[in-house]
Amino acid sequence: MSIFTSLQKFVICVSAGKRCFSRVGFIGLGNMGGHMARNILRNGHKLVVFDVNESAVSNLTEVGADRASDPTEVVKDVEVVVSMLPSNQDVLDVYNIKNGLLSSAKRDTLLIDSSTIDPFVSQILAKEAEKMSVNFIDSPVSGGINAAKDGTLTFMVGGSKENFELAKPLLKSMGSRIIHCGNVGMGQAAKLCNNMLLAISMIGTAEAFNLGQKLGLDPKVLANIVNSSSGRCWSSELYNPVPGILDNVPSSKNYEGGFGVTLMAKDLGLVQAAAAKVEASIPFGSLAHQIYRAIIAQGFTKKDFSFVYQFLKGQQQL
Amino acid sequence: MSIFTSLQKFVICVSAGKRCFSRVGFIGLGNMGGHMARNILRNGHKLVVFDVNESAVSNLTEVGADRASDPTEVVKDVEVVVSMLPSNQDVLDVYNIKNGLLSSAKRDTLLIDSSTIDPFVSQILAKEAEKMSVNFIDSPVSGGINAAKDGTLTFMVGGSKENFELAKPLLKSMGSRIIHCGNVGMGQAAKLCNNMLLAISMIGTAEAFNLGQKLGLDPKVLANIVNSSSGRCWSSELYNPVPGILDNVPSSKNYEGGFGVTLMAKDLGLVQAAAAKVEASIPFGSLAHQIYRAIIAQGFTKKDFSFVYQFLKGQQQL
Amino acid sequence: MSIFTSLQKFVICVSAGKRCFSRVGFIGLGNMGGHMARNILRNGHKLVVFDVNESAVSNLTEVGADRASDPTEVVKDVEVVVSMLPSNQDVLDVYNIKNGLLSSAKRDTLLIDSSTIDPFVSQILAKEAEKMSVNFIDSPVSGGINAAKDGTLTFMVGGSKENFELAKPLLKSMGSRIIHCGNVGMGQAAKLCNNMLLAISMIGTAEAFNLGQKLGLDPKVLANIVNSSSGRCWSSELYNPVPGILDNVPSSKNYEGGFGVTLMAKDLGLVQAAAAKVEASIPFGSLAHQIYRAIIAQGFTKKDFSFVYQFLKGQQQL
Amino acid sequence: MSIFTSLQKFVICVSAGKRCFSRVGFIGLGNMGGHMARNILRNGHKLVVFDVNESAVSNLTEVGADRASDPTEVVKDVEVVVSMLPSNQDVLDVYNIKNGLLSSAKRDTLLIDSSTIDPFVSQILAKEAEKMSVNFIDSPVSGGINAAKDGTLTFMVGGSKENFELAKPLLKSMGSRIIHCGNVGMGQAAKLCNNMLLAISMIGTAEAFNLGQKLGLDPKVLANIVNSSSGRCWSSELYNPVPGILDNVPSSKNYEGGFGVTLMAKDLGLVQAAAAKVEASIPFGSLAHQIYRAIIAQGFTKKDFSFVYQFLKGQQQL
Repeated sequence: MSIFTSLQKFVICVSAGKRCFSRVGFIGLGNMGGHMARNILRNGHKLVVFDVNESAVSNLTEVGADRASDPTEVVKDVEVVVSMLPSNQDVLDVYNIKNGLLSSAKRDTLLIDSSTIDPFVSQILAKEAEKMSVNFIDSPVSGGINAAKDGTLTFMVGGSKENFELAKPLLKSMGSRIIHCGNVGMGQAAKLCNNMLLAISMIGTAEAFNLGQKLGLDPKVLANIVNSSSGRCWSSELYNPVPGILDNVPSSKNYEGGFGVTLMAKDLGLVQAAAAKVEASIPFGSLAHQIYRAIIAQGFTKKDFSFVYQFLKGQQQL
Repeated sequence: MSIFTSLQKFVICVSAGKRCFSRVGFIGLGNMGGHMARNILRNGHKLVVFDVNESAVSNLTEVGADRASDPTEVVKDVEVVVSMLPSNQDVLDVYNIKNGLLSSAKRDTLLIDSSTIDPFVSQILAKEAEKMSVNFIDSPVSGGINAAKDGTLTFMVGGSKENFELAKPLLKSMGSRIIHCGNVGMGQAAKLCNNMLLAISMIGTAEAFNLGQKLGLDPKVLANIVNSSSGRCWSSELYNPVPGILDNVPSSKNYEGGFGVTLMAKDLGLVQAAAAKVEASIPFGSLAHQIYRAIIAQGFTKKDFSFVYQFLKGQQQL
Repeated sequence: MSIFTSLQKFVICVSAGKRCFSRVGFIGLGNMGGHMARNILRNGHKLVVFDVNESAVSNLTEVGADRASDPTEVVKDVEVVVSMLPSNQDVLDVYNIKNGLLSSAKRDTLLIDSSTIDPFVSQILAKEAEKMSVNFIDSPVSGGINAAKDGTLTFMVGGSKENFELAKPLLKSMGSRIIHCGNVGMGQAAKLCNNMLLAISMIGTAEAFNLGQKLGLDPKVLANIVNSSSGRCWSSELYNPVPGILDNVPSSKNYEGGFGVTLMAKDLGLVQAAAAKVEASIPFGSLAHQIYRAIIAQGFTKKDFSFVYQFLKGQQQL
Repeated sequence: MSIFTSLQKFVICVSAGKRCFSRVGFIGLGNMGGHMARNILRNGHKLVVFDVNESAVSNLTEVGADRASDPTEVVKDVEVVVSMLPSNQDVLDVYNIKNGLLSSAKRDTLLIDSSTIDPFVSQILAKEAEKMSVNFIDSPVSGGINAAKDGTLTFMVGGSKENFELAKPLLKSMGSRIIHCGNVGMGQAAKLCNNMLLAISMIGTAEAFNLGQKLGLDPKVLANIVNSSSGRCWSSELYNPVPGILDNVPSSKNYEGGFGVTLMAKDLGLVQAAAAKVEASIPFGSLAHQIYRAIIAQGFTKKDFSFVYQFLKGQQQL
């Protein structure tokens, strides 16, 4: 299935002008990680993978990856590992200083965590890594499952300039934009800030279009006005939550696909925790978290996050 | 001071292909209205004006306008009147059915209210106007004082298609974009929805940049990321509230000029009232109103609305 | 059905030591007004009633009331009228200066409005009444349908001390507590402030008990602690929203009966409008309004206002 | 200074009918802990204390306590230790499994943590304690500095029934109410739920009284109405935030003394973190946190938490 020959791979390594990671470890083969791992294979790297879900592992071994029996086995004979895990705790468990990546990695190994987690957890791991002369960067992604599949993810990277440059060629095999955001944790920070603003402007868009329609405005007229005025935002222009304004967005497909409410609620939970630690005032960020929790509490767990438009509109008018 | 000759004016009227308003009435010569009236004069119309503020009137008579002693005198011998007033009550007083515009206007007069008010008040006035065979449209503006001065305002017009076309050439003398939003009241509705979304995305931007900086992110790096990602909005791109990111926006000029917090609070008060009437859910719109009220309560009445960034940041860290 | 003889009525009037209202007008015979009118009859007054709902009128004429064909006929030959209407607009229509109570009332008539409405509407009516030498007081009630039935309502009265004393004996026939709150409008103001605080502390109670249970606390233990500590409020002590803590409250009866979410949303809408007019900061009052609107939007229109506990708890956990 | 003789102490132990803690360890001698430790001394116990602040230690050694050089020395030869520390991290450091209380305590030692912290941290410590056959309970307090001084604190205890009974006599020397809330962590949970509801009802009270006054209500009249109606809460009755309604509350003393805004913000931060973990919806709890953060950001760090009334009222009216 690989579309790259080893010659091509060789060329990639040389052109990168630095350490060449011929063999890569990958931990966490879920909805996102599975596609990301495949794209690494497609780019000609050898791959060793681990996941607690056996069928997720088989999907990768079928296309040429090797299987490891635990995270420490992944890191044993590679110089770079990518992890893509669902929560702070999963990341802590996998990197665990006692019998995880951090204790088993060889000197100078590069550990790349693409999970979306608390930036302070990333920083704790980086500190531990440093003690062991291991390199750590955080590089959470945006773009969702389709971008993971197509290899067009955006990576927001936190870490030293040197480690950023080291990781870049490998990240390029999975994404189209690789952005250096600052020291370790800043990848997470950038992602959380962006997604908080996304949630806020989506809810604002949902409110504005609900109000407009109840006042008698045609939503297409309102979209034209807002999108050429100061109310313009990504949610109103490219992801409008009102069915029928844009094709190919979740609102026109019964709010299926896209970026689910539970993922948004997870990110907003991380925002909340981070803001509490640094004592930042985020009244709208907090309320956005609560609104997504309320949507979930009402049972709409499978919907795209633009469903907030329907939630506020309601099923029934007085 | 007029830069148009009567010949030019004649051409304008003919090219408009409809009723030609050679003489125009104007009521309300405040920060916005004064500039708007001047632009009408500049376009070659004769003008008769009224304001309770004598010096505002003198500024216009000095450049060629006639003075009226009250609103009814304004409407006596013109076929079109533009009003630009600060509140629902002012509009109700000026249009008053007993001794205001509505009772004194000749049949077929066109009354254009550019005040930002409750859309339901616009609709009440339109109904009264109809009984008297007078035409009424609402056409609130966006763009602020500079656009009023330069004649580049956006007019959001509510009224019949016919009245919209009738008003358009005159509005063109004051603005660059004249948008038909629907029936009477829909100009107000569109403006309120846009400004609510503006307030929400500005507060969201302020929160995201405050949080980012406290987490250690460089605000310029964050701006680059957000503005090329899903968090992008007009406030982050073109009116960033963090000093030093953009030149020539209020945040880089001590939050002076621009769109003041009291004006934003006024618009959000109208939003609140309109939403209550139609029973629309606007949790963020309501909270935005309260946040601007709190900023005003703390004494920052003269600041641009992007000052919310400083308000949330605070003077003092624990 | 009347349980008072005319002798008893005579005694009441004398003991009141002032003008005796032998015949009373009543407008608005809904869920509350119907019971209130009956209690006036039971206290020995003659009664003339009006409602747009014919069967509501019949219920009263069957027990001895006279029927009027419109509000002006009610006021024709009585010296006191009580109104109990659902909205600002209904009150404005019934009191209309052109062909309503205010234009038809004889000099010195006492008009008592027990509707819950905007305090500024009450004040407008009082001003008009004064011009016509008619007396007006606002006296909204609390206590709900059961208290209306039992004659144990609380009346919060706004008006002159003199008018308050004049109305008191009649109000006593419908309620057990008659409180003078200040000038006209202050009855409404007191009711709105109380109900806003009620909504806020109920939502707070709902949040605290939801959080406590998810953390593992027994809700009965938590109720004991809160009710003997600084978190104590009427909602936690006497109207606890968690099923099974108190008997005979709506939460233990599937949230039926009680004070419905739509009535609470109505009162919070009035709060919002009043706060906007006087520019008061009410972040929680605003958000409470939005939360009740969201509950209604999800279709729970028939539930008691303590249902917010279930709404926040949700149907489903992740 | 001790007011109890050793005979009295002996009687206390016997009457408790269980293990007698003749010598007690105490860690954390701050504003609260200092008074609590003195009350233990006054009740006839021997005491060994530790704090990083030397003068806090001297204050206690002057009245008879022994000094320890670190937490492990405190626990060396006592069977019970009370800790009263400012944050999660301080507690984790003092109890540290490597060289803190948990590793140094003898089998069956009772460790009582009276700090207000994350209930999940309490549960982690209890689990570690269990592995080492050491007993752990959480017992945060309410009542503030005056109650600490007077020995009238309320202790909310989480732990086994057996450990609760064991701790009770000692806690009685510092408090008047000792409540068993459930398993470990439930003391923290009860305190956090109570304080969240307290913050919410205080803010609600502040809003209601601000709105009432702006509408024209006398605040004393409003207090009478609310306190005999459904809006009643501890904050309106016993801690009214409007100056002049109650004597001897912070609002009548320039908002000095009492329960400071920074302590309330700290507790609400713990609430937020706990709610995020168990995915509880707390829209008002979140917003309360943000409001106290905004008060602090504006520089009012020394004020009692009832100062929110002044904050919402503002310095300046439009």
